[in-house]
Amino acid sequence: MEQVIYFVPLASIVALGFAYYFFKQMMKESEGTDTMKKIALHVRTGAMAYLRQQYKVVTIVFVVLALIFAVMAYFNLQNAWVPFAFLTGGFFSGLAGFFGMKTATYASARTANAAKNSLNSGLQVAFRSGAVMGLTVVGLALLDISVWYLILDHFVEEVDAAHKMIYITTTMLTFGMGASTQALFARVGGGIYTKAADVGADLVGKVEAGIPEDDPRNPATIADNVGDNVGDVAGMGADLYESYAGSILATAALGASAFMLDPAMQVKAVFAPMLIASVGVILSIIGIYMVRTREGAKMKELLSALGKGVNVSSLLIAISTFAILYGLQIQNWVGISFSVIVGLVAGIIIGQSTEYYTSHSYRPTQKVAESAKTGPATVIISGLGLGMISTAIPVITIGFAIVLAYLSAIQFDLSNYLSASSLSLGLYGIGIAAVGMLSTLGITLATDAYGPIADNAGGNAEMSGLGKEVRQRTDALDALGNTTAATGKGFAIGSAALTALALLASYIEEIKIALVRIAEAAGDGLAQVGAVKMDAAAIKVASFADFMVYYNVTLMNPIVLVGVFIGAMMAFLFCGLTMNAVGRAAQSMVEEVRRQFREIAGIMEGKAEPDYARCVEISTKGAQREMMFPSILAIAVPVVVGVIFGVAGVLGLLIGGLSAGFVLAIFMANAGGAWDNAKKYVEEGNLGGKGSDNHKATVVGDTVGDPFKDTSGPSLNILIKLMSMVSIVMAGLTVAWSLF
Amino acid sequence: MEQVIYFVPLASIVALGFAYYFFKQMMKESEGTDTMKKIALHVRTGAMAYLRQQYKVVTIVFVVLALIFAVMAYFNLQNAWVPFAFLTGGFFSGLAGFFGMKTATYASARTANAAKNSLNSGLQVAFRSGAVMGLTVVGLALLDISVWYLILDHFVEEVDAAHKMIYITTTMLTFGMGASTQALFARVGGGIYTKAADVGADLVGKVEAGIPEDDPRNPATIADNVGDNVGDVAGMGADLYESYAGSILATAALGASAFMLDPAMQVKAVFAPMLIASVGVILSIIGIYMVRTREGAKMKELLSALGKGVNVSSLLIAISTFAILYGLQIQNWVGISFSVIVGLVAGIIIGQSTEYYTSHSYRPTQKVAESAKTGPATVIISGLGLGMISTAIPVITIGFAIVLAYLSAIQFDLSNYLSASSLSLGLYGIGIAAVGMLSTLGITLATDAYGPIADNAGGNAEMSGLGKEVRQRTDALDALGNTTAATGKGFAIGSAALTALALLASYIEEIKIALVRIAEAAGDGLAQVGAVKMDAAAIKVASFADFMVYYNVTLMNPIVLVGVFIGAMMAFLFCGLTMNAVGRAAQSMVEEVRRQFREIAGIMEGKAEPDYARCVEISTKGAQREMMFPSILAIAVPVVVGVIFGVAGVLGLLIGGLSAGFVLAIFMANAGGAWDNAKKYVEEGNLGGKGSDNHKATVVGDTVGDPFKDTSGPSLNILIKLMSMVSIVMAGLTVAWSLF
Repeated sequence: MEQVIYFVPLASIVALGFAYYFFKQMMKESEGTDTMKKIALHVRTGAMAYLRQQYKVVTIVFVVLALIFAVMAYFNLQNAWVPFAFLTGGFFSGLAGFFGMKTATYASARTANAAKNSLNSGLQVAFRSGAVMGLTVVGLALLDISVWYLILDHFVEEVDAAHKMIYITTTMLTFGMGASTQALFARVGGGIYTKAADVGADLVGKVEAGIPEDDPRNPATIADNVGDNVGDVAGMGADLYESYAGSILATAALGASAFMLDPAMQVKAVFAPMLIASVGVILSIIGIYMVRTREGAKMKELLSALGKGVNVSSLLIAISTFAILYGLQIQNWVGISFSVIVGLVAGIIIGQSTEYYTSHSYRPTQKVAESAKTGPATVIISGLGLGMISTAIPVITIGFAIVLAYLSAIQFDLSNYLSASSLSLGLYGIGIAAVGMLSTLGITLATDAYGPIADNAGGNAEMSGLGKEVRQRTDALDALGNTTAATGKGFAIGSAALTALALLASYIEEIKIALVRIAEAAGDGLAQVGAVKMDAAAIKVASFADFMVYYNVTLMNPIVLVGVFIGAMMAFLFCGLTMNAVGRAAQSMVEEVRRQFREIAGIMEGKAEPDYARCVEISTKGAQREMMFPSILAIAVPVVVGVIFGVAGVLGLLIGGLSAGFVLAIFMANAGGAWDNAKKYVEEGNLGGKGSDNHKATVVGDTVGDPFKDTSGPSLNILIKLMSMVSIVMAGLTVAWSLF
Repeated sequence: MEQVIYFVPLASIVALGFAYYFFKQMMKESEGTDTMKKIALHVRTGAMAYLRQQYKVVTIVFVVLALIFAVMAYFNLQNAWVPFAFLTGGFFSGLAGFFGMKTATYASARTANAAKNSLNSGLQVAFRSGAVMGLTVVGLALLDISVWYLILDHFVEEVDAAHKMIYITTTMLTFGMGASTQALFARVGGGIYTKAADVGADLVGKVEAGIPEDDPRNPATIADNVGDNVGDVAGMGADLYESYAGSILATAALGASAFMLDPAMQVKAVFAPMLIASVGVILSIIGIYMVRTREGAKMKELLSALGKGVNVSSLLIAISTFAILYGLQIQNWVGISFSVIVGLVAGIIIGQSTEYYTSHSYRPTQKVAESAKTGPATVIISGLGLGMISTAIPVITIGFAIVLAYLSAIQFDLSNYLSASSLSLGLYGIGIAAVGMLSTLGITLATDAYGPIADNAGGNAEMSGLGKEVRQRTDALDALGNTTAATGKGFAIGSAALTALALLASYIEEIKIALVRIAEAAGDGLAQVGAVKMDAAAIKVASFADFMVYYNVTLMNPIVLVGVFIGAMMAFLFCGLTMNAVGRAAQSMVEEVRRQFREIAGIMEGKAEPDYARCVEISTKGAQREMMFPSILAIAVPVVVGVIFGVAGVLGLLIGGLSAGFVLAIFMANAGGAWDNAKKYVEEGNLGGKGSDNHKATVVGDTVGDPFKDTSGPSLNILIKLMSMVSIVMAGLTVAWSLF
């Protein structure tokens, strides 16, 4: 049985191998004319400069945090593996972003060049490049997971097998915290960068100077294209690396505690999420190969080709899950397999609802566009209204998914559904539903990541003067990507909620470990657990439900309520800070672009080249400066709440942050998506088309939507999980020192 | 001791007497020229027509709900007093709105006329008219409370005094539900009306036709002025009636359960909030008389006069609280008095933070105005960012207030702060902090309500052509009102959060009563309490904390988590629905105004009178149509969640709704306030002044802010409490029938 774990690094190597193969394939394509090459080089240089700067800053943060963990380990508040696990999580997450971006910046000119031949050729280059990103993310995540598992399994010594497994899985969560920290910086920094450049380029270029998007005369245009790479590619890569690894690690930790009394079953429960993910990698590669169409295919055929790839992978993973869990002979294998299906179905429903609310093929977004007739204010009001209303279906879906995944895992044993054993098994069901959602990330991320590549290809085509036809094709590819990306977003946001729930249980598990450590070190062999004193043996056998009673984690405890309030506030505060950061960074960009138009003679006539590098530099500096405070806040607040309000306060904080953050994230993502597509709807010739007053009104909506959907909204997904991860890693501190 | 209760109706009669006296005084003032009278009559007729229509619709809802309660009483799921208490709550709340609006519509022309003489004369008329509203609200609330108490005390028969008091106080909560239901309809309907008219009038009149605000040529101008009355006066009256009564009733119910084992103390604990409120009434009247200035006083003097009135009342109520609680010889009287002080101080801090974030004397709002330089999109982004960031101080303040009010009530007995007796006493402390916040509502509401009166006076002055000077004075009064209103808003929003927390405990109390009823009716004398069966005697002595265990209301129960998610979603959904309702209602208004400009010849030249009545009718119909769905949803969702997910699900729902709703409400109110004042800042001549591009950009912000601060935001306060009230009244159903 133990040997099946070697399938995980194997799948990882297969994924990385195919990623390398697709990369080489893409590199063989021609990069086009000299102008195209030059522009691509500009963008690549800018993007790499940003990433270098970003990683420099983030490294400092990582070193400081790792030192803090080392000090905690020294004072017996954590174990000694933690600083290293934390560092590797951050490193691999950063590596995934780096490879993804490298590929994307090489692919854009090649995609534009291929699009000169046909829509299909463009799709092939862009999609295969997206696949590089998808496979790199899952490959690196599985590599990190399996290597750490093997190391810890070899070195950790514990009294018994069951507690060893709990020790291993909770330690591995620390690398999840590393990944989350890296992801938050990548999303926030990249999000600020891309939107500052975008807003700056649009406001001065399009609105004031009246030149089209991606016009080479606009000094911010290279920065804008760099932004698509650092925000939408590198940011998304780090983000999904974190989601993917987080869901597997949280579920493994839950499996370890759910089957603590049966070590043989425990091993299976820990392996199950890793194996499902590994099989998912293979199925994703099959799916990627299914995305083929005949030459001269129309949009609709391309869309169905992409859809086919994703759907076949999803269907196969559903079937494989039954086979894997049957093969493992895991307890309740039918029920737990259905939990995975629940996750998959929930992800699809959320994706469909995202598409309904944000695609201009449907009424809601069309209504937002129509409200442009009464000016920008009504565009904003109706977009906000749409976003708020659009939260209903995803929340109800996730609610049902939570209940069904839970009940399915305990085989609908309603008579006893909240007993200690049901609770941990049910939570395992919730965790594995998240793993199911993300198991085909290899291909769903490919459909997501090729959008920005197509977008950049469009930019390159525009700047190189490749003609309208090429631009239309890259726009079509981009639009196609938006549709398929909706499903990907559904999976990402749904899995974030489920993973965060699973992490609550891991938090309690880590509290137990910290208490055992304290009890074993204490002279009397006892540790203070809430209002009572207990010895290590009693703590080890206490259930999640027991801990709720010890620490009074009920909805009548005012400490819990204060935590919930602060958690909800954190989601809003974080968004407010990142929104304002975009505003400030955009402001400096606007001023720089205006300065260049004013001071560099001949820009508008195309006789002098604008100083692109200066704009790249301004965006980079702005993003670095602005990302620090909100990110540090996200790390500091759980620690402060833990030290003041203790376990009950932290759990309140996590629930408040999760619930409000989840709803706020959907609201922002959908409002932003609807504004974007309302503008596109007008640009396609409806309601007066480009240049009309209606168009101007929808441009205002789109500009407001930019930080909604690309900075604040997606960062919330990470924030939710990072706060949980920080709490888990800091559990030792909370238990040792809290005021309440 | 029992006799002190008669002080409550006495205070009520004093309040109503002074209200009548101030009304008569105001009516003695001259209403000005014939034009002024005619315009005031137009507005009055429109407002009354709206209110008649509104009350007709709401009556139907009330009759249906009362019938449902009657059926529940018949099936032993509620007691027989409930339908009647529910109806009177709705009736008195409606009456408060009616009297307030009647006064306001008589006062506007008189204020304008008085402002012809001096700023001070205008202030006196407007402020005294606001005082009519303030005193009517508190007078009617205390009347309803004391009459119901005396009736129930006389007629209810129970096994012992302690359970009789619990029975009385929880039954009286039903009248709180009546008040909340009426308030929600008033806020939502009035909010939709006023913003539809406002947005409609502004978009076509100001932007398209280029005529000034309140120009008599604008067909929507009367509807706009009617809107100020039905939204800001009648809506606010019903809203604060609900807050005021709700905080007293919730605290009384908590007092009854906290001191269940000591009937003599129990009576005192039930009377305490009523007595504090009654003394507050007298102090408010003293405060109102202190608002006097010499003739020819400047703005600053007026502001300090208003501030003096409020501050003196607040200081006196702080001192009186100690006297009252000492006089009652209530247990821990010093500590509980400090809980009241905590409430007062928290209200002031929240008010100050509201002022800081929304007044254009401070940097945040100035920054929003400055972002107009880069267009309307950045005005929206920075306003949203400001609103989100502005949630931090109020949430942290309320967090500290919750903890301090709780701990103070149990005299900082930290060793045992979550024992059964500490929990109910601590929650009583939280409830009475809310009573403290609202105890001087008589005067704080006066400072709040005179704003719309001054606003309407300005409209009247403009339409009657009274000259710039009068308009400037009424604008000054309006601005003055905005500043003092910030404190009022702080109290309203803070008390909503604390009252909602207190209602959680009342919910458990009502669950207990329902279970006792079931146990007593059952053949075996037992009722199902969560997973166990218990008899009536055991249920009666069980504590809040016990119920948390019986029903697994912990943060690890997935049912609780699903409830929290749905609650958070409800806050967003409700806002989205009301935002869109405003959009749709405004749309029909825009079309009507455009039609009149097109079809009625000579409007623009001032030769033909527009059809004001048609616009009033459209707004009325739009508001009535649009208010139904969100309001019914707010009532239905807690019932559905209760029937499916049971007690644990409902408590999750209430916490999720409370936390997300509270934060969302602050965000919307402050963003809306900042946009409004950013526009005023530009209109005062900054950044290019009126008519500049910067001005146009801030007008977009203001238009978006209108439904934020006057429709969706304030409705959330009521939504939070109404969901609790509905859950309390429907507790019998939940206990008898829920799926989980």
